[in-house]
Amino acid sequence: MRSTPHAEAFPAHTPAAAQVFTAVLSHGPLTRLEAGRRAGLSAAAVTKAVRPLLAAGYLAEGADDDARPTPGRPAALVRVNGERALFLGVKVTGGELIAVLTDLCCRIRVARRRPLPDRAPGPVLASIAELVQELLAHAAESDAPVAGLGIAVSGDVDRAEGVVRYSPFLDWRDVPLADLAATTTGLPVTVDHDVRALTVAEQWFGAGAGLADFALVTVGTGIGCGLVVHGRVVAGAHGVAGEIGHVVVDPAGPACHCGNRGCVEAIAGESAIVARMRAVTDRHVTGVTQAVALARDGVPGAREVYERAGEAIGRGIATVANLLGPERVIISGEGLAAYDLFADQIRRAFTTAAFGSAARCDVLTRPLPFEEWARGAAAAAIQSFITHTPGTGQG
Amino acid sequence: MRSTPHAEAFPAHTPAAAQVFTAVLSHGPLTRLEAGRRAGLSAAAVTKAVRPLLAAGYLAEGADDDARPTPGRPAALVRVNGERALFLGVKVTGGELIAVLTDLCCRIRVARRRPLPDRAPGPVLASIAELVQELLAHAAESDAPVAGLGIAVSGDVDRAEGVVRYSPFLDWRDVPLADLAATTTGLPVTVDHDVRALTVAEQWFGAGAGLADFALVTVGTGIGCGLVVHGRVVAGAHGVAGEIGHVVVDPAGPACHCGNRGCVEAIAGESAIVARMRAVTDRHVTGVTQAVALARDGVPGAREVYERAGEAIGRGIATVANLLGPERVIISGEGLAAYDLFADQIRRAFTTAAFGSAARCDVLTRPLPFEEWARGAAAAAIQSFITHTPGTGQG
Repeated sequence: MRSTPHAEAFPAHTPAAAQVFTAVLSHGPLTRLEAGRRAGLSAAAVTKAVRPLLAAGYLAEGADDDARPTPGRPAALVRVNGERALFLGVKVTGGELIAVLTDLCCRIRVARRRPLPDRAPGPVLASIAELVQELLAHAAESDAPVAGLGIAVSGDVDRAEGVVRYSPFLDWRDVPLADLAATTTGLPVTVDHDVRALTVAEQWFGAGAGLADFALVTVGTGIGCGLVVHGRVVAGAHGVAGEIGHVVVDPAGPACHCGNRGCVEAIAGESAIVARMRAVTDRHVTGVTQAVALARDGVPGAREVYERAGEAIGRGIATVANLLGPERVIISGEGLAAYDLFADQIRRAFTTAAFGSAARCDVLTRPLPFEEWARGAAAAAIQSFITHTPGTGQG
Repeated sequence: MRSTPHAEAFPAHTPAAAQVFTAVLSHGPLTRLEAGRRAGLSAAAVTKAVRPLLAAGYLAEGADDDARPTPGRPAALVRVNGERALFLGVKVTGGELIAVLTDLCCRIRVARRRPLPDRAPGPVLASIAELVQELLAHAAESDAPVAGLGIAVSGDVDRAEGVVRYSPFLDWRDVPLADLAATTTGLPVTVDHDVRALTVAEQWFGAGAGLADFALVTVGTGIGCGLVVHGRVVAGAHGVAGEIGHVVVDPAGPACHCGNRGCVEAIAGESAIVARMRAVTDRHVTGVTQAVALARDGVPGAREVYERAGEAIGRGIATVANLLGPERVIISGEGLAAYDLFADQIRRAFTTAAFGSAARCDVLTRPLPFEEWARGAAAAAIQSFITHTPGTGQG
């Protein structure tokens, strides 16, 4: 089944080595000194960590290929050799698969989309396998081995066990996706919560780079949240974390699929907005595009649906800020397309509900297309590879 | 003003040394191997960290004084020499100061309480100074220097700056307490949020020992929460974190001092319970003892006041669990005296509002008298001492 060369194990056998590699990956090229400073390690520890990585070709010396040599800068720069290994990332939405092939630096080489005609685990797995084969064919054009596959799914996902415990949008319960996909594709598989995977990518390469504490809030079909605390993504002792969508903002509000009432997602999630728009305008609203149009057209009551959603999101963000006090909150997700309709309410509700200095948190928006989510899945696979996370399945 | 010998600087000049010391402090006596495992460090790093600490007398070899020698166990155990330095901890409540003198192992030697006749910063500071003098007199009975004073206050406290930004129960805004107390007492002062300080003590010596992720929820005058994520107490980028008391559970609920409505604290805090009890029973209720008695006596409506409070607390805890997925939630605080009146509601609301596997979190109760809170303040001072946190003021 495999058409690409095998990747041997990543030669970083200590947490320190993985930390140095991650520092160079997200901030490189770096001097050893700077890599040590960022990873919180001594020069001796960096030297020791870097040596086997250079020998095995995962790190290289000198500036990046496409970077010009900087005059006066010593040649002691270390960078990740992106060509050394390839990774696949797949984001599963309720209606579509989005997949990317990346290099070890998580740079996208190829991106593909494929509609998902059936949401049952079997057909989804078959679609993933086909998409993986298509991308493996691209990967075979280079000599680099494909070292891992990351799959990002929304819901209650146990990354350590590789199990999707509950996905409302797919209507899955307890699906051992990592094992199944490893058997089907022959690759080491990391299954992660989609927002957490995207958060890893944001922490390494995006608006969270260099921050010890930030939150990524995604607004769309669901309302999700990835949290970085003390420099690491919060995974939750039992695989659940960042469930901002299920912060209750109105106990008398609409019923949520989780069994409670008035959750942020039950007010501001796409299907909630569409349902409410239908009730308020008495029109046949089938999707969010129509809902946005009605609000922009000034149809009576339509604007208020978004304002209410914005208030719920702002209150959810304030809850995160009051509990964790992040430096920054990054708002993203496909719901940003309607951002002008609820931006004011988000900010106002956040400012009102934030406790004391928590209101000083920097709240910004950042559009991230689904390819970036798939890249997040690839980042999760890279993370498993470099930290030797006990992978489910193997190549 | 100082009557005790000065403590020189703690000879741990790397984060690794502070980590090793903290591991021995909370789990010791330990072998070097075990200390390294707990601190995530190599044997060489531990040896390097331990040497100057042994030389300066902060660590000692062999089992604890009061521990029996274990046959067959090698003599390579390392323990903290509790006699080497002393610390003071003061917890400030709305009506009282509670202070302790502890050794370097945070064992309480003397505890004192003193009523607070006036809540203005000046009088509180004068009371703190008197209490400190009283405890310094005790400290002078031994040769050990007093190396720091910790003060724990509720509200919006900026530990890094040593400033109480807002304390509702004291009615303080922007009081530079660390500077003021350092000037008055001549000691290095650490001012911390009371629940965060207690959380440090729980992490080192209590029900959070050995856990990477847990929450401490305190129920009483206020509803507070200390969070440990990835093994470290969450302080918040701007000094605010763990504000579970200001999670809104009912936007149509009673007004809160923070400016919002229906916060957990506005429903389940002591004064909220007393006010509600008054309204519901139409009796002259002056304090929580009376409120508890009315509920226990079965006065119509009284029980429901506690049930409503329990539901609010349970929903607040579920919000923490849904966002952070801790391994354990420890419920404490003086409100535990009424625990039988709302325990069922807390559990039921938590289970209902917890999302998926977040409900697996271990929720337990643990009574901690105010002396333990003062000990938490001493633990914060010990933490500043061993991590060389840029102390405000110095001895």
